[in-house]
Amino acid sequence: MKKVAVILSGCGVYDGAEIHEAVLCLLHLSRHGARYQCFAPDKPQHHVVNHLTGETQAGSRNVLEEAARIARGQIKPLSELKADDFDALLLPGGFGVAKNLCDFAFKGAEARVDPQVLAACKAFATTRKPAGYCCIAPVLIPHAYPAGVKGTIGTDPGTAGAFSAMGGEHIGCAVTDVVEDSHYKVISTPAYMLAENIAEADTGIGKLVKRLLEM
Amino acid sequence: MKKVAVILSGCGVYDGAEIHEAVLCLLHLSRHGARYQCFAPDKPQHHVVNHLTGETQAGSRNVLEEAARIARGQIKPLSELKADDFDALLLPGGFGVAKNLCDFAFKGAEARVDPQVLAACKAFATTRKPAGYCCIAPVLIPHAYPAGVKGTIGTDPGTAGAFSAMGGEHIGCAVTDVVEDSHYKVISTPAYMLAENIAEADTGIGKLVKRLLEM
Repeated sequence: MKKVAVILSGCGVYDGAEIHEAVLCLLHLSRHGARYQCFAPDKPQHHVVNHLTGETQAGSRNVLEEAARIARGQIKPLSELKADDFDALLLPGGFGVAKNLCDFAFKGAEARVDPQVLAACKAFATTRKPAGYCCIAPVLIPHAYPAGVKGTIGTDPGTAGAFSAMGGEHIGCAVTDVVEDSHYKVISTPAYMLAENIAEADTGIGKLVKRLLEM
Repeated sequence: MKKVAVILSGCGVYDGAEIHEAVLCLLHLSRHGARYQCFAPDKPQHHVVNHLTGETQAGSRNVLEEAARIARGQIKPLSELKADDFDALLLPGGFGVAKNLCDFAFKGAEARVDPQVLAACKAFATTRKPAGYCCIAPVLIPHAYPAGVKGTIGTDPGTAGAFSAMGGEHIGCAVTDVVEDSHYKVISTPAYMLAENIAEADTGIGKLVKRLLEM
């Protein structure tokens, strides 16, 4: 039985992990009989967004505590993630990736990645254990892999350009498909970078998880 | 194309809507080509639970604003729900149903239902439009339908007893199955009242949504 580490970045598309994508990742892992353990950084979110109005709201929330909502309480601090204990890594998207796991939302191609997140991603990269990145999460790929690594964030020219500027080779991809770098064993899918409904996101994520477990 | 109203009760199993169930409901609606609109009461949550520790935490959150996280911002206040505009009603579970939509978590069989929630559920009941209730949400069924209405909350004797005490006829049900009251067109599934993993919850919810749209 394969064991997969899932890194979440909060709970909610505008300030945390994209909830649909996170749940679909867990669903497909479970359907394939894989075990998973969720992780998240134990630190404050960049900010809190009122998802009804789209505006920043007062108050502070903790990434780990909010991600625990998606994980039904079964989650550990990212500091406890040891790649040796797992067969693969999986990251759903959401602005939380670009705001809490790195600062891509603010710095674009000049982004820096949270050191714990970078260490975790690199641990899977250097041991050639398969890793899957959904939606905006592939902006982490060029940081964790050598230059020329292939990935997709869909078709958005700005984000694709930043992916290339950071050292990756961006490959355009339909929402229902995946881009696979078979050399580095890293796979990505656009999900809600392109999806117009949850069923579309599900198709791409389902393919990604299947390939992740086959690799 | 069928239109389905989905009532959410926040965002997180311990103080709001159960996130996996809510997303699975939306996924199956989308897969079947149905359109949906999410609604939630515009009022404070009963309380906020830290999902990492399970403890109540300081602060106040609004049910509608938190539910908006699951709905990716596409949600309306429950006061705007008009049954005439929809073909069916669907409620995922989570403690939010028993804490924010009614007070079953505290009063059991003596529970009272939020007036807006009761009006919405009754509007579908009295017009014989199909309605689906997942997990703990079926505790609302005896309030919205005449005595003798059939439903399930799984196999927990205490909750089943309360369902009967409130006037319903409780029928035990496996997590992968549904209980259907074909007279009143109401259907229920245990989901995380019994599910040991998300794939199990998905099987029951998938059946429920399929039947809901067929009814």
